Amino acid sequence: MTKMIKAFVLLLLLNVIHSSVLDNEILDCKNYLSNKLIAEIASYQPTVNVLIKEIVNGQFKTSTYNELATFIDKFGNRLAGTENLENAIDYMLEKSKLKKLENVHGEDAPVQTWIRGKESATLLFPRRQNLPILGLGNSVGTSEDGITAEVLTVKSFDELNERSAEAKGKIVVFAPEFISYGKTVVYRSKAASEAAKHGAVAALIRSIAPFSILSPHTGMQSYEANVTKIPVAALAVEDAHLLERMQSRKQRVVVNLKMEAHLGEVKTSRNTIAELKGSSHPEKVVIISGHLDSWDVGQGAMDDGGGAFISWNALNVLKSLDLRPKRTIRTILWTAEEFGYVGAQQYYKDHKNETHNWNFIMESDEGTFNPYGLNYVSGDKGSCIIKEIVKLFKNLNATSSTRSDSVGSDINLWLDDGIPGAAVLQQNEKYFWFHHSQGDTMDVEDPVSLDKNTAIWAATAYIIANLEDDFPRD
Amino acid sequence: MTKMIKAFVLLLLLNVIHSSVLDNEILDCKNYLSNKLIAEIASYQPTVNVLIKEIVNGQFKTSTYNELATFIDKFGNRLAGTENLENAIDYMLEKSKLKKLENVHGEDAPVQTWIRGKESATLLFPRRQNLPILGLGNSVGTSEDGITAEVLTVKSFDELNERSAEAKGKIVVFAPEFISYGKTVVYRSKAASEAAKHGAVAALIRSIAPFSILSPHTGMQSYEANVTKIPVAALAVEDAHLLERMQSRKQRVVVNLKMEAHLGEVKTSRNTIAELKGSSHPEKVVIISGHLDSWDVGQGAMDDGGGAFISWNALNVLKSLDLRPKRTIRTILWTAEEFGYVGAQQYYKDHKNETHNWNFIMESDEGTFNPYGLNYVSGDKGSCIIKEIVKLFKNLNATSSTRSDSVGSDINLWLDDGIPGAAVLQQNEKYFWFHHSQGDTMDVEDPVSLDKNTAIWAATAYIIANLEDDFPRD
Repeated sequence: MTKMIKAFVLLLLLNVIHSSVLDNEILDCKNYLSNKLIAEIASYQPTVNVLIKEIVNGQFKTSTYNELATFIDKFGNRLAGTENLENAIDYMLEKSKLKKLENVHGEDAPVQTWIRGKESATLLFPRRQNLPILGLGNSVGTSEDGITAEVLTVKSFDELNERSAEAKGKIVVFAPEFISYGKTVVYRSKAASEAAKHGAVAALIRSIAPFSILSPHTGMQSYEANVTKIPVAALAVEDAHLLERMQSRKQRVVVNLKMEAHLGEVKTSRNTIAELKGSSHPEKVVIISGHLDSWDVGQGAMDDGGGAFISWNALNVLKSLDLRPKRTIRTILWTAEEFGYVGAQQYYKDHKNETHNWNFIMESDEGTFNPYGLNYVSGDKGSCIIKEIVKLFKNLNATSSTRSDSVGSDINLWLDDGIPGAAVLQQNEKYFWFHHSQGDTMDVEDPVSLDKNTAIWAATAYIIANLEDDFPRD
Repeated sequence: MTKMIKAFVLLLLLNVIHSSVLDNEILDCKNYLSNKLIAEIASYQPTVNVLIKEIVNGQFKTSTYNELATFIDKFGNRLAGTENLENAIDYMLEKSKLKKLENVHGEDAPVQTWIRGKESATLLFPRRQNLPILGLGNSVGTSEDGITAEVLTVKSFDELNERSAEAKGKIVVFAPEFISYGKTVVYRSKAASEAAKHGAVAALIRSIAPFSILSPHTGMQSYEANVTKIPVAALAVEDAHLLERMQSRKQRVVVNLKMEAHLGEVKTSRNTIAELKGSSHPEKVVIISGHLDSWDVGQGAMDDGGGAFISWNALNVLKSLDLRPKRTIRTILWTAEEFGYVGAQQYYKDHKNETHNWNFIMESDEGTFNPYGLNYVSGDKGSCIIKEIVKLFKNLNATSSTRSDSVGSDINLWLDDGIPGAAVLQQNEKYFWFHHSQGDTMDVEDPVSLDKNTAIWAATAYIIANLEDDFPRD
């Protein structure tokens, strides 16, 4: 267990560090791609056109939305370790078999469960007010009466260091401005231990979100080894600002925090797998993926229902149109992503000896808004191939491409090992308005955008799985 | 009491009907304004410039925001009939005296109180899910066990009429699209009685809002005479959509609704009045106003803290700069607006014999976002005067004007009697994102926009109160 937590911390940090988009370099692709390869990719234009036509305007129009809505409305949110998630996984396995997808099965992954229980924060002084909160993943709870303490609000870890003497016995509130998720999320993942080092009895954070309608946002956090574990929860942006204003007026601010949060048993969850077996190189694989678990608030429609369902429905469409590529396309619906990529970690261990056959790995976990191209991780030659592929998406106005060093939380393990991969570039500026909050519902999802994402997903996977040569790793 | 409720219904309906903006006609103002009057108005440019300079960039910069934030953070929301609102009124009276405003006093208004109590809605079938709700004003409650019934979701009153046979014994959910507040709010004000006429046991409405992060919006509703009073509450937009989708799949949808809502005692609240006495015609009056009460959710910072505080601070600024006009400028902070303009109705009765002296009446109750001019009700000559006044707001990029037939809920009584008036034109497209919800907090308010609103408010009131001739009513 301790090992696993350490791995979580590492992954959380990696994720923070890996968020920057690389400078969009000018490559001279003539040095990398033969005319033959360029012509080969261009030859997929009719196939791509059929995919776009059938998914966006034809027989599959709104099918991703409808399948997703049916699923979300049936199961609601799907916290890792719950029976509800396992029922949702069974549903997807059953549906995959009905759709005649191939090699349909689940693969076990052990999940350390965490139970939120009841939770509340109440401002007691200078006046009484309920402060809606969401406890953060893996947080410990409080006693039944809760923790009643004065509040110290700080903007940063640096400010906490400077005001260390004031923190002892207090509830420390971290209220950093939202710069970007990558830059700001460290105040969620490390708040509790950083506050505890200065003697705080609990920590609260401003939700990691740029906009709020008094909606707290949960998310994972990790305790540092050998530091006292204190309870930690997220406040709505507005309430963090309220506490800041009160402190700026030199008012004594007292909060009572009650949380029943605690770790539960280790349970077994499953990654959900379905394939379209390759016609000539079935052992070679292109992976399209999203995660099926969600936080225990909202509906998990955006994070990551949308990503999971474009990955699943892209496979249905290819199967249905009898577009079977040379290599295998494998859809993986990861489990327990929200608890630290637990399903992906297990899959990484279990399939270590096969990855030489993995051509390309895709994940959609940053929304399925209106797409405009591909965001990818690859070497220079691969980069040139992607640039040729996105040219085929002219009908979708989705011909952009950006090279990054991280494009999906679950798949980072393999990207870091040098396997190339991609996500959809899309207009996800509002993603963090809803992320990990009660606002993650079907209302965030748009049928047309889901169709477009499905089309890009199906086309990209199909082309790469069907190219004469393996997708280059260099 | 019954009379009062009837008056509420009338006013609610009036408000709905009165929301349209008149066609912005081309007036030949040469027929209405003498060169002398045009020159007189133009001569205020230096005074307006001083007001803008001092409020937006000078000694009063951010004072409206700071005063408002101090007030909001001290009192939170202020439901009519609560001790908290009366404390807030005392605070404003005290503050007004400290600022040496004149004729500072409260004027009593009786308020039929309504108490929300605890409330919940739980989806029981096809699966269990908490549905956040906000009971609507004046709603009756349920028994302790609540009402458990099947749900019938309709888009409109017409659809309910068509499906009348299905409504009996059910909870009717009204899920109209948000067209505009004026056009859609009838589904809040009349939902309960319309559903009861078809035998429904309770009503739920899609919140009257164009955007949501799972945030229900409350508001006033009225029971029709001789129709069974059934409980009524607002669902979040997303949950109304959820119930619609379930019904479209022919699923049986069952909800349990619990509400402790009930009417309380009739209590005495107060309108809050402060003046700057006119130097030569103290009996003649220009009114600037907003309402001090709010709903019992969120903080009432936008609705209508901002409107109340620009009205109050505009008077402070004029007093402080020794800009005393010929006529009296009166700030009125209405009470119990949310319960049906109760304070305004009382004031209307109590001051019936003085209104021949009222020159102009202003209310800000639709937000204090970035302003771009004035929205006014007046005859043609008044219209031409307003067009000359807004020319003076060039430094604020606020030279637009629109003639309407309603510009403020409390002041409609007088506008309908032919007294001209105005509100600030401002970029309030997001007003109904926050209106009557937990999201009505100080985060909606912007210091710079508040300053600009205060400047327009102070300048408009000052000019009209200081013109040689009374503002024309024709």
